[in-house]
Amino acid sequence: MPSVNVAVIGAGVVGKSFLAQLAALKSKSITYNLIFLSTSRKALISSDYKPLDIANALDLLKTSSQPSLSIADLIAYLKESPLPVILVDNTSNEDLAKSYPQFVENGISIATPNKKAFSGSFKLWNEIFNNSGSGLVYHEASVGAGLPLISPLKEMVETGDKVVQIEGIFSGTLSYIFNEFSTIQPNTAKFSQIVSVAKELGYTEPDPRDDLNGLDVARKVTILARISGLPIENSTSFPIHSLIPKELESVESAAEYMEKLPNFDAEMDALKSEAAKENKVLRFIGKIDVPNNKVSVEIAKFDFSHPFASLKGSDNVISIKTDRYPNPLIIQGAGAGADVTAMGVLGDVIKIAQRIAK
Amino acid sequence: MPSVNVAVIGAGVVGKSFLAQLAALKSKSITYNLIFLSTSRKALISSDYKPLDIANALDLLKTSSQPSLSIADLIAYLKESPLPVILVDNTSNEDLAKSYPQFVENGISIATPNKKAFSGSFKLWNEIFNNSGSGLVYHEASVGAGLPLISPLKEMVETGDKVVQIEGIFSGTLSYIFNEFSTIQPNTAKFSQIVSVAKELGYTEPDPRDDLNGLDVARKVTILARISGLPIENSTSFPIHSLIPKELESVESAAEYMEKLPNFDAEMDALKSEAAKENKVLRFIGKIDVPNNKVSVEIAKFDFSHPFASLKGSDNVISIKTDRYPNPLIIQGAGAGADVTAMGVLGDVIKIAQRIAK
Repeated sequence: MPSVNVAVIGAGVVGKSFLAQLAALKSKSITYNLIFLSTSRKALISSDYKPLDIANALDLLKTSSQPSLSIADLIAYLKESPLPVILVDNTSNEDLAKSYPQFVENGISIATPNKKAFSGSFKLWNEIFNNSGSGLVYHEASVGAGLPLISPLKEMVETGDKVVQIEGIFSGTLSYIFNEFSTIQPNTAKFSQIVSVAKELGYTEPDPRDDLNGLDVARKVTILARISGLPIENSTSFPIHSLIPKELESVESAAEYMEKLPNFDAEMDALKSEAAKENKVLRFIGKIDVPNNKVSVEIAKFDFSHPFASLKGSDNVISIKTDRYPNPLIIQGAGAGADVTAMGVLGDVIKIAQRIAK
Repeated sequence: MPSVNVAVIGAGVVGKSFLAQLAALKSKSITYNLIFLSTSRKALISSDYKPLDIANALDLLKTSSQPSLSIADLIAYLKESPLPVILVDNTSNEDLAKSYPQFVENGISIATPNKKAFSGSFKLWNEIFNNSGSGLVYHEASVGAGLPLISPLKEMVETGDKVVQIEGIFSGTLSYIFNEFSTIQPNTAKFSQIVSVAKELGYTEPDPRDDLNGLDVARKVTILARISGLPIENSTSFPIHSLIPKELESVESAAEYMEKLPNFDAEMDALKSEAAKENKVLRFIGKIDVPNNKVSVEIAKFDFSHPFASLKGSDNVISIKTDRYPNPLIIQGAGAGADVTAMGVLGDVIKIAQRIAK
């Protein structure tokens, strides 16, 4: 049976779920061998490239005394693999992301939810995708977790469709906050209250400003814009509306920020009332306008009848208008979470393996 | 550069659009050679397997005096191809569909929007997908045209997710008719009037009963149910609500049917009013309930806030609830049309070529 070797970095919630899904995978056509697993500190290495026990790999890693490999040593190890290799990067490590071109050059393929490489400099993007190496790079879960976005969008472009506009709600946290704040049925909820509840529920980062600054959304928009053909320089080279009031940008602690946030509720209330008067709701979106080469992250207003207005919970939603879809293609669903992210990564591993297994 | 040979059957609107997209394809990694093109009557054959001129193939076919090949002769021709071969079936031919297992057995891969093979007998389904041959079979465009449905659903199942429920509006024609008939804002439109307008606009088959009998929806539901794990015997082995009044099933002409249809408007009006009283709209859906092994095609009621209620035009929409997506994954957009169907087929051709090109 054709086989591939798989090397996994990262054993956080996504990494754990990925290993569980890989262990349970019943492929009738390809054998997936785990040969390497590491965190930032420790590694489990099959020195003879014989398959490790996937189901027990996490336990074995815990008791391993082998320190993790440097990127150079990892590449040296993987390029000697007798079978084709897929590196699965389940981290959000920027150094590792910057080294993808070296892996690809050495014939090592990559499957990853790590946004860093694809939303970094445009130079890095080109070094990854216009590389003379034979490694393949798949990153479905870098936007919208397991939602089918990257692969369908790449396919549209490859088959000759032209992207006109993409609009989307790409942050589960900001989806929840705006879905609660600005609703079709009038409500009196205050922005600061909802942020506070979201923080208590664990929906936000420990410091909610890490969600509210819009930078995570900007990274995802950068990736989709590049696939759509725009040469975006980096993920801050376009207008990004931060939801953090200027006056609170520099306060030191998250606690102080949360305490002072209610002072700014009037501004958000005014925006909400203005939208409601037009039968619209507010949503925090990323927007890509290809013909005009414009990208932005912003608060936008949507009619009550628009699919973004009836969004619930913390779902992501993306609307893709192309020459072939003048009435946009819409994809909606959970855009975060360990299991759906791991599914997106494993789906990429399968697609790569179907191309390279020997 | 790795190459594949491509054989295309069908030169209708989808076939023409497919050839145009294939001619324009700029692949940096694979060469796609057209070696065969035929309609039901005529063929254009590269006897030495050298590439035909894709851009002029339709014109050359018109002036060709070569009759089309029998299925046996076609298989004999393709299995001698020096390069791996993809058969692109852009027809809705049932005989051809029934012969897919023979192609697969002989190492010939298939990309097709033809629903017939996948919604035929369960025996045929198994012969296609549990075949000892090395041919691959991709059929993204058999449901929802170019919408990303089949491939994401297969990936979910393969990576260990469990489908719980699928609901969808799978007919562009019936989407239009119900979106016009049963709206969130009250309206007085009659069902028969809307069918009549849809017919005039060319949205229905020449005899609208071919849409209204629900059989096309049943075929699509059969395909999705089987991917979800249900052993559906055939596309009529479950309850299918026909929108054709019993009394009109046997009237001979479409004209007579259209003339008598207004006599049955009261029934549909009653259903619509009943739904409106509950703040709901009517939609014609296919439904798959995996844990209870139940499949149906029916008129169902949806809350005004449900994504199906705000559907516009003739879009398809599908809602997939799984263990990993308890809040369903929703995919919406044009589910018919030559260009989006051809895109779905070409996407499959690319994916197959990436796996088999030599």
